Amino acid sequence: MTATPPSDKALVPFVSVENMMNLVHHIGIEPMLRGLSDYIEEDFRRWELFDKTPRIASHSAEGVIELMPTSDGEVYGFKYVNGHPKNTKEGLQTVTAFGLLANVGNGYPVLLSEMTVLTALRTAATSAMVAKHLAPKGADTMAMIGNGAQSEFQSLAMKAICGLKSVRLWDIDPAATRKAASNLKGLGLDVHVCSSAEESMEGAQIITTCTADKQYATILSDNMVGSGVHINAIGGDCPGKTELAPGVLHRSEIFVEYPEQTRIEGEIQQLSEDHPVTQMWEVINGTKPGRTSAGQITLFDSVGFAIEDFSALRYIRDHIGGTDLYMDLDLLADPDDPRDLFGMLQRAGRT
Amino acid sequence: MTATPPSDKALVPFVSVENMMNLVHHIGIEPMLRGLSDYIEEDFRRWELFDKTPRIASHSAEGVIELMPTSDGEVYGFKYVNGHPKNTKEGLQTVTAFGLLANVGNGYPVLLSEMTVLTALRTAATSAMVAKHLAPKGADTMAMIGNGAQSEFQSLAMKAICGLKSVRLWDIDPAATRKAASNLKGLGLDVHVCSSAEESMEGAQIITTCTADKQYATILSDNMVGSGVHINAIGGDCPGKTELAPGVLHRSEIFVEYPEQTRIEGEIQQLSEDHPVTQMWEVINGTKPGRTSAGQITLFDSVGFAIEDFSALRYIRDHIGGTDLYMDLDLLADPDDPRDLFGMLQRAGRT
Repeated sequence: MTATPPSDKALVPFVSVENMMNLVHHIGIEPMLRGLSDYIEEDFRRWELFDKTPRIASHSAEGVIELMPTSDGEVYGFKYVNGHPKNTKEGLQTVTAFGLLANVGNGYPVLLSEMTVLTALRTAATSAMVAKHLAPKGADTMAMIGNGAQSEFQSLAMKAICGLKSVRLWDIDPAATRKAASNLKGLGLDVHVCSSAEESMEGAQIITTCTADKQYATILSDNMVGSGVHINAIGGDCPGKTELAPGVLHRSEIFVEYPEQTRIEGEIQQLSEDHPVTQMWEVINGTKPGRTSAGQITLFDSVGFAIEDFSALRYIRDHIGGTDLYMDLDLLADPDDPRDLFGMLQRAGRT
Repeated sequence: MTATPPSDKALVPFVSVENMMNLVHHIGIEPMLRGLSDYIEEDFRRWELFDKTPRIASHSAEGVIELMPTSDGEVYGFKYVNGHPKNTKEGLQTVTAFGLLANVGNGYPVLLSEMTVLTALRTAATSAMVAKHLAPKGADTMAMIGNGAQSEFQSLAMKAICGLKSVRLWDIDPAATRKAASNLKGLGLDVHVCSSAEESMEGAQIITTCTADKQYATILSDNMVGSGVHINAIGGDCPGKTELAPGVLHRSEIFVEYPEQTRIEGEIQQLSEDHPVTQMWEVINGTKPGRTSAGQITLFDSVGFAIEDFSALRYIRDHIGGTDLYMDLDLLADPDDPRDLFGMLQRAGRT
C-alpha cells in the first residue's frame, strides 16, 4: 500500500532567497520596485480595512525577534523578522526575515517566502511611493546618508518611481560608500561620492537617512536642513535609535505609517506624544493634504509596517504563477478524512 | 561568474508532513510520545524561565488564525495555527499548523516544521504526562469521549506513559468510533466500543473528553462523574466551547497550564474569575500538591499552550540529526558582506 501524495491544498508555494533573486531579475529590478510601490499604495488606500496590531516583540540582551501580523479580511499575512546589531561583526545579517500569506476563510497558508531581499525592496518602494506624494515638484537629486544594505535599493526606487537622476552618497565609513557607488554604476543614475553629510545635501531636494547607529545620533542637525526638501528618515526605527535633531522635527510637517508604532520606534519618539503627525494613508486617499507649499519641509518618519510586507507578499503571490521560481512545500497535513489523522500516519508507516 | 551557494547559516532545516510521519515510524510512535512527554515535563519544570504571552489571534467570521510565540532566553519558538470548524465539511482540516525555532542570540531560524501531526502528538503527550502526575494509582482504564482526530493519539499516549490497558470509546457519531477502534486494533490496548457516554465511563479511572462541539455543550453532566477519577478535558479550548457541567467543575480540583489563557478558553470560563486553580508546572516542580486523596476528582483543563509546542519543536530539532528526514531550505539571505545585499542580488543576475 502506498501513501497518497499530498493534495494541492496541503502544498504551500515557497520562494527561496535564490528564487527571489531570480524573480527580481526575471521581472527587472525597476519594474519590480514600481510594481511593489503600486501594491503598497493600493493597500495604503484601503488602510482602514486592515487589522492593525503593533508588532509582537521578543526582546533579549542581543536583539529582538518580532512577528508582524495583519489581515485585510480575506488574506492574512505575517512577517518574522529579527534585529541583532551585533550580527554584522560575526558575518551575519543584522536583519533576516521571512513571511507567510494565508487564506482567512479556511486558515490554510498560501505562500511562504524569504523576506530579507523582499523587505529591502519593499522598504525602498515604500520610501519612493511616499516621496512621489511629498517631495517638491521636479525633485531629481537625493542625498543618501548611510550607504549600507538599503542604500542602493533606495536610490533605484527613487529613480524608478520618482524620476531621480542624481544620488549623492555619504557614509562615515568610506568603504560603504565605495561599495554603494560601485553597485550603482551603470544603472542610470549620476552617482556622486561626497566627503561630508553637508556636501551630500548640496542641491538635493530629497534627503534619505539610513544609518545603523543604535543610539540616539544626530545625522541631520538643524542648521544642515534648508527649506523645500523632503526628508526620508529610514534609520530611526526602534526605541533609542533616532537620526534627526529635534530642531529638524519641529520645522517639518511629519508623515507616518501607523502613529501608535511610530511614536515608540520612529524619530518622533523625541517629541511629545501629542505632537501632530499626518498618517500617510490619509494623504494617499485624499483625506489629508500632503505638501502644501514649495518651501515646506516634509518628513516621512518611516519605521516599516506590517501592511507593507503584506503588500509585498501579495505581489510575490501574484507574480510567481507561470514561473518555476518557487517550490511546493508539504507543510500541511491533509488526510482524506480530516478526522483520520492517525490513519494517515499509520498508512505512511506501511509504505 | 557563478553565485556563491548559500552558507550553512542561511539554510534552515525543514521537516515536511511526509518526513514528520517518517520520523514517527523511524523512532516508533510510543517511544516518540514518551520522548515528547519528557521534553514537555522538562519545560514545565523550568516554566518560570519562559516568556509567556497569550496567543495572538486574528478572528474572522469563519475562524481564527493564531501565532503562539515563546522563548526560554536561548531559543525562541512560535507556532502558526488556525481553527476553522467549517473546514471539515469542505474536506479540509479544522486545524493546521506549522512551527519555527530560532536562535535568540542572533535571530536566525534553526528549524521549520509541519505541526499538524506534531501538535496531535504533543497534545496527547501533554495529557498523558499530566495524567501520570494526577490520575489515581493503578489507573489502567480510560473513557475516551469524542473519537475524532485526537482520540487515538490520546489512547496511545496514555498507554505509553501511564500504563493504560483498556480504552472505552464513545462518540455521538458511530462512524468516528468505528474509525478509532479500527485504527487502535493491534496496538496493544483492549478497545471497547460503547453505546453511551455513561457506558464508556464504567470502570474508567481516567475520563478524556475531546469533542468538536463549538457551543457550550454538556458532555459530562454532574451525575455521570463518580469520585476518584481523573478528567482530562481537551475539547473545551476556546471562548464559548466547553464540555463539562459546572457541577463537575465545582467538585473537582482543577489544574491548568496558564491561567490567564485557560480562564478565557478552558472549561473554567464557566466559573468566577477567582475560582482557585493550580498551575500544573507547580505540581511538577514539587511546589504544589497534585492529587491528595484517592477519592478526589482531579481535572486537567487543557487548552494547549505555546511552551508545549516549543518542547515538541525542541524534540524534533534534537532527533532529525543523522537522519535524512529533513531538507535544507534557502530561507535566509546571507551575503558575504552583510552590508552588500544589493551586490549579492546583482551577482545572482549574472549567473
